Amino acid sequence: MKIIDGGVTAAKGYQAASVAAGIKYQNRKDMALIYSDVPCASAGTFTRNVVKAAPVRWDQEVVKSSKGVQAIVANSGIANACTGEMGLQNNKTMAEAVAKKLNLTADMVFTASTGVIGKQLNMEAVVNGIDQLTESLSDTIEAGTLAAEAIMTTDTIKKEVAVQFEIDGKTVTVGGMSKGSGMIHPNMGTMLAFLTTDIAISKELLQEALYDDVQSTYNMISVDGDTSTNDSCFLLANGMAGNTTITTKDDNYYRFVEALNVVNTTLAKLMAGDGEGATKLLEVKVVNAVSKTEAVTLSKSVITSSLVKTAVYGNDANWGRILCALGYAGVDFDSEKVDLYIESIDGKLKLVEDGMATDYSEEFATKILSGKEVCAIIDMKMGEAMATAWGCDLTYDYIKINADYRS
Amino acid sequence: MKIIDGGVTAAKGYQAASVAAGIKYQNRKDMALIYSDVPCASAGTFTRNVVKAAPVRWDQEVVKSSKGVQAIVANSGIANACTGEMGLQNNKTMAEAVAKKLNLTADMVFTASTGVIGKQLNMEAVVNGIDQLTESLSDTIEAGTLAAEAIMTTDTIKKEVAVQFEIDGKTVTVGGMSKGSGMIHPNMGTMLAFLTTDIAISKELLQEALYDDVQSTYNMISVDGDTSTNDSCFLLANGMAGNTTITTKDDNYYRFVEALNVVNTTLAKLMAGDGEGATKLLEVKVVNAVSKTEAVTLSKSVITSSLVKTAVYGNDANWGRILCALGYAGVDFDSEKVDLYIESIDGKLKLVEDGMATDYSEEFATKILSGKEVCAIIDMKMGEAMATAWGCDLTYDYIKINADYRS
Repeated sequence: MKIIDGGVTAAKGYQAASVAAGIKYQNRKDMALIYSDVPCASAGTFTRNVVKAAPVRWDQEVVKSSKGVQAIVANSGIANACTGEMGLQNNKTMAEAVAKKLNLTADMVFTASTGVIGKQLNMEAVVNGIDQLTESLSDTIEAGTLAAEAIMTTDTIKKEVAVQFEIDGKTVTVGGMSKGSGMIHPNMGTMLAFLTTDIAISKELLQEALYDDVQSTYNMISVDGDTSTNDSCFLLANGMAGNTTITTKDDNYYRFVEALNVVNTTLAKLMAGDGEGATKLLEVKVVNAVSKTEAVTLSKSVITSSLVKTAVYGNDANWGRILCALGYAGVDFDSEKVDLYIESIDGKLKLVEDGMATDYSEEFATKILSGKEVCAIIDMKMGEAMATAWGCDLTYDYIKINADYRS
Repeated sequence: MKIIDGGVTAAKGYQAASVAAGIKYQNRKDMALIYSDVPCASAGTFTRNVVKAAPVRWDQEVVKSSKGVQAIVANSGIANACTGEMGLQNNKTMAEAVAKKLNLTADMVFTASTGVIGKQLNMEAVVNGIDQLTESLSDTIEAGTLAAEAIMTTDTIKKEVAVQFEIDGKTVTVGGMSKGSGMIHPNMGTMLAFLTTDIAISKELLQEALYDDVQSTYNMISVDGDTSTNDSCFLLANGMAGNTTITTKDDNYYRFVEALNVVNTTLAKLMAGDGEGATKLLEVKVVNAVSKTEAVTLSKSVITSSLVKTAVYGNDANWGRILCALGYAGVDFDSEKVDLYIESIDGKLKLVEDGMATDYSEEFATKILSGKEVCAIIDMKMGEAMATAWGCDLTYDYIKINADYRS
């Protein structure tokens, strides 16, 4: 497997487009379209928030249908959540407008929105935007990159990645793009990920592969603990790589799963490190826990702690806050067995042994914590399970971005 | 029932003292002592964090013992958590030093610590401090107020309250003091509350009354979602009011419960509103939920949302964030039935009806949110249960206080 240039247009048979449709602001790219030349097996995972945006409700029906999906349309600025019947109708109109221009039926189109909750979409802007999008589709790497830029909001870097590997002598490509936890006027850290591949695979296995991988990638990142009403991850597989269609969990399936994991892990880490106001990526690895579930719970408790996040911002090796966050996770353990290390490009240091401070150098600890990517490794010394969570520091800019996004 | 001046020395037979012992800094009050002239029925509730500080482990044993408690000693600066065997020994020495000076046994003394995790107490300073404390005990209102000041750290206001009511023609007093969520160099929002009363009541009913009331008062506040290793609430009852000892849940018991609730609610709200960096108190009231448990879960999900807290700081009526936080609480409900109001001294406004925005005035909403005490009332329209949670806004100063507390 190798990492290659590009994102959603890296795989065979995909085109993309982006446009400034004026959904909320003028002269700012705010709509993107992904199109496959042929119908795709499709999979999707969506927010577990009880309050689901109109596009999420639509997409959940599309995933259930047996039809192939051929397009995904996305807008930023307005989330189309808490918008009632009119919101559902507007979302349907969005899918229908794409379908009409591309000779599809509406149930072959995924929709995605991100932005402020409770406001209706300006449908004239949306439909005009769709007209422009459908007329400017292109299969170049650049078109994919421009689409990745169009879904950026407070994101400070575009997020795309693609990998290639071989099955039956055929080259298979998996690519994707995502938007991180921020909008120019952020409402909440809506996470959207769009993945495309030319592999031939059954819809059932595609959904299972996506669902499983999301648990250890996107579901392990946290910027502020707020789960959006709009979180969505889409995966299209159009079969154009020409491999024999994967219908069982054979070696080829696991080769695909591995590639998918590289793409999703890369995008997840890019999002966590680019969280609102973040200055660094924080990785929390819990090892030797009793079970996977407990390892996940412990790592997430640490990654979401405001006190851990502010200490990391201050480059302060305040390990007591990490042990404290483990302690209130709801998992039983012996705090007098825990070891804790921190690691970055500058080195690795053991801060805690058997629940108490080692004789470490504060100076070296501060140097490690000053890195752009900092990892905390927590050894529970209880079992063999592990989990990794990703997040970021909590900074003045997070407050600035979120204290008044609407004015 | 009436509210009176004072705190822990308001009830008959209690004395208090405070001192600058130099635990971590010089010339800053950092130790306090509460003493009852006679042995008390005692009750306590403690942190649920798996990582428990040495004093918490000690106090849990004291609560279990059948002996009367007569003193509580507290220090700030060092939390005595993650300190191993030496920490347990130091804590025991602290109780023994108090016992020796006051002619008690060590198991008649509660201990409490707050401050940085992982460092050992300077026992010479502690023991010298205890000498001074025991020599300066006083039953004046002022002595109680000075003790309330001694346990302040980043707290910006002292927190004490007392109430009086009658049982069998006898005047009963319940008083208390607490420290809020902050230390001068805060490690985590350790919450300590010290309550004294002269009521005569059985130890069993005292513990039950305290446990029940803590659920709807201290356990309903959140500053940053981090549960400390040291949280403790103590209640002493010395019987000096002269009422017939309460041994059943009669009218007198419920009169006491009511008074206790006023004291605890007052101290809890003072702590929430004085949270680290806070500019205002936020109250979230969920009404007409299916069950008490669901009402508690929903109100806590809103009060702990970083996005809700930053919006409140910005006086921004960003109601979508509140609906979103309800949505990820883990409770099932119909978002298209929810009504939402905001209220402060400036008025009351309905922002959301049946899950969608009303035609409210943004200007009036901002005015309401600018108050020092802001309430969000969420009507689930599903049942008859309710719960109230208290918190505060999330501000630049929270980051400032916590990004580097140790230097």
